[in-house]
Amino acid sequence: MTLAERLQRLGTETAFTVSLAAAEWGAKGNRIYPFHLGDLDLATPSNVVAAMDRAIADGKTGYCPAAGIPQLREALADDVGARRGLTYSPSQVVVQPGGKPVITKFIQAVMNPGEEVLYPNPGYPIYESQIEYFGGVAKAYRYIPTPTGFGIDLDQVRSLVTPQTRAIIYNDLQNPIGAESTDAEREAIARIAIENDLFVLSDEAYFEMRYSGTSTSIASLPGMQERTVILYTFSKKFAMTGWRLGAAIAPQPIADAITKLNTNDESCTTHFVQYAGVEGIRGDQTEAKAMLDVLVQRRDAAVEAIGAINGMSVATPDATFYLFPDVTDAMAIVGTDDLAVFAEKALHATGVSFCTRRHFGRPQPGETRQYVRFAYSGISADDIREGLGLLQQWIGSFA
Amino acid sequence: MTLAERLQRLGTETAFTVSLAAAEWGAKGNRIYPFHLGDLDLATPSNVVAAMDRAIADGKTGYCPAAGIPQLREALADDVGARRGLTYSPSQVVVQPGGKPVITKFIQAVMNPGEEVLYPNPGYPIYESQIEYFGGVAKAYRYIPTPTGFGIDLDQVRSLVTPQTRAIIYNDLQNPIGAESTDAEREAIARIAIENDLFVLSDEAYFEMRYSGTSTSIASLPGMQERTVILYTFSKKFAMTGWRLGAAIAPQPIADAITKLNTNDESCTTHFVQYAGVEGIRGDQTEAKAMLDVLVQRRDAAVEAIGAINGMSVATPDATFYLFPDVTDAMAIVGTDDLAVFAEKALHATGVSFCTRRHFGRPQPGETRQYVRFAYSGISADDIREGLGLLQQWIGSFA
Repeated sequence: MTLAERLQRLGTETAFTVSLAAAEWGAKGNRIYPFHLGDLDLATPSNVVAAMDRAIADGKTGYCPAAGIPQLREALADDVGARRGLTYSPSQVVVQPGGKPVITKFIQAVMNPGEEVLYPNPGYPIYESQIEYFGGVAKAYRYIPTPTGFGIDLDQVRSLVTPQTRAIIYNDLQNPIGAESTDAEREAIARIAIENDLFVLSDEAYFEMRYSGTSTSIASLPGMQERTVILYTFSKKFAMTGWRLGAAIAPQPIADAITKLNTNDESCTTHFVQYAGVEGIRGDQTEAKAMLDVLVQRRDAAVEAIGAINGMSVATPDATFYLFPDVTDAMAIVGTDDLAVFAEKALHATGVSFCTRRHFGRPQPGETRQYVRFAYSGISADDIREGLGLLQQWIGSFA
Repeated sequence: MTLAERLQRLGTETAFTVSLAAAEWGAKGNRIYPFHLGDLDLATPSNVVAAMDRAIADGKTGYCPAAGIPQLREALADDVGARRGLTYSPSQVVVQPGGKPVITKFIQAVMNPGEEVLYPNPGYPIYESQIEYFGGVAKAYRYIPTPTGFGIDLDQVRSLVTPQTRAIIYNDLQNPIGAESTDAEREAIARIAIENDLFVLSDEAYFEMRYSGTSTSIASLPGMQERTVILYTFSKKFAMTGWRLGAAIAPQPIADAITKLNTNDESCTTHFVQYAGVEGIRGDQTEAKAMLDVLVQRRDAAVEAIGAINGMSVATPDATFYLFPDVTDAMAIVGTDDLAVFAEKALHATGVSFCTRRHFGRPQPGETRQYVRFAYSGISADDIREGLGLLQQWIGSFA
């Protein structure tokens, strides 16, 4: 009894194997410095938890509408619209069990088998997985190092578009590389989308996870709102990764299609958790803001410590909680050109655990520099300094 | 910009339109007797809520493994296995955000486009929707009235099997009709599955929602465990419909495929809710059992009241919280042969709101009797007597 053939096209997140390797090394009595987690070790704001408790006491334990409770759809339409200078109707907001379901539902709603979707690589691995799973052709576009970080290879994006291209996935404030588009870059992506009549999935998971400056949504550019689906999540801003609460904010026909997918896939998102989301948006922001203060201290500690490591260099992103240093020279010092070997040696020598570029897609042709991803969302500033200090010593020991 | 063609094959649950019609009629100041809800108006057991609160206080607000927390997988393997006389490994248990996701993930895991899957009609409408959405051929099998309820038309099932048939969906303790297989019927379905090498989705949402007797799983029959995926849900037994917590219990290769789908679709099920599930299974059962005492009183009140209505007859199921009376003669008395008209007239004349056979699939060829579904999960025994008394008077007024 063989299983369905479509499963052979289904990818996964290989980053979980890094968690496993770290856990196994830790179980042998070794100290682990966890830079591999795209998760937060901070508590969900107490007012958000209290709102959920009130909802349960009020009996919000039965089914709710497939698209979410009206209060949350209104709150999101108001808040997401206001931060982007756009007007959304609550009917365009479809609540989801997390941000991730927006990826699969967007692909299902807009892409036919055989059609092409452009996606960032390095990038979140589920984009490629879901394009291919639903029978599409996943076409990767690259980032190029710039003096201040990374920029999208716009010439490559243009060259990848064909008459079969249906959509582009765009992750400004990028996981894993922490890059942010310039206005010109964002406008260039919008122009490509409009000229070629593409749908856009704008993954805005980190839109409000920033330490200076202001985020801009590609949906705000002229001609873009009607072709863009925004992926919104409560996971990062409110330290709610395990709560599973997010939303698709979409043109009405796509919102309707995604609502129908909700009815089929999971009936609704956990009812009382949605009241916690309303409090997150409408309620007191003190604790949510305090989280950003903690994170920026971690960022600064990590950037400084990485800068002190021989053979590593990194930009200082204004947003996300990721750093994506170029470690090509450090690997040469250690004596390997294999990222997996480098990561394993580092773990065993220092306890520092991290993902590499290989966890975020296959290398593109002509890619010569090597990168790793340090997440500072799940480790204290003191441990950041201590762990990266050990990494510095270890690499220094080869000199 | 047209959307993907696959959306044209996506069905839905039309029962939601009944909720809407009832709400609209109620908003005009009319008293509603809600027999349409497949939801419970009872509180989740307090020890289950308390376990969730403890989990949040313990910081279980981050991601957890895609297949669920080990404690819940162990608890389900033990409990589901023990109640069915089977042994399951925790690795065969894949936690889901509700029971419903098991339907789509089962279809995705076992059925190729163009292959056939048999499903019950009347039955839960998502079966047909998901088979067709993923490109399969949905083949309906029927139920025939028996002296004690309904039986599957086994000759029809046998006649529907072809070399292209991959699976059969089986919902013993059936929604909407409340039927339960005899041992002989269950064995006959198993024999058909084995002889034709079919996978089986055994929807056991109501396995423990019974008032007398003992449930038997088709997975317990010889040769069946290795081809059967059990749909398990916390929704009914613990009044947790809005919590979204369920599981697939499956042969290992299917469990592995469903875990990979979890990683792609929603990362994981809400973390702290899973600790509530552990308490539901391992903890004090007093409140869960008390719910059954309430429900059986409602069942008896509803069966008695329906029996007093001219032109309606109904069996007394030992399980589920649904009654599926034959209303053909009552409709003739009222002067309509259209179920939608009958339901609307009843709502406007009495406030009694219910789904009809048409909300659970297209009528099959040769189907002549008319049925409606009364759910007694969301209405008190007193209101059941009052509402069905009004229905009796209304139908009596035509005599």
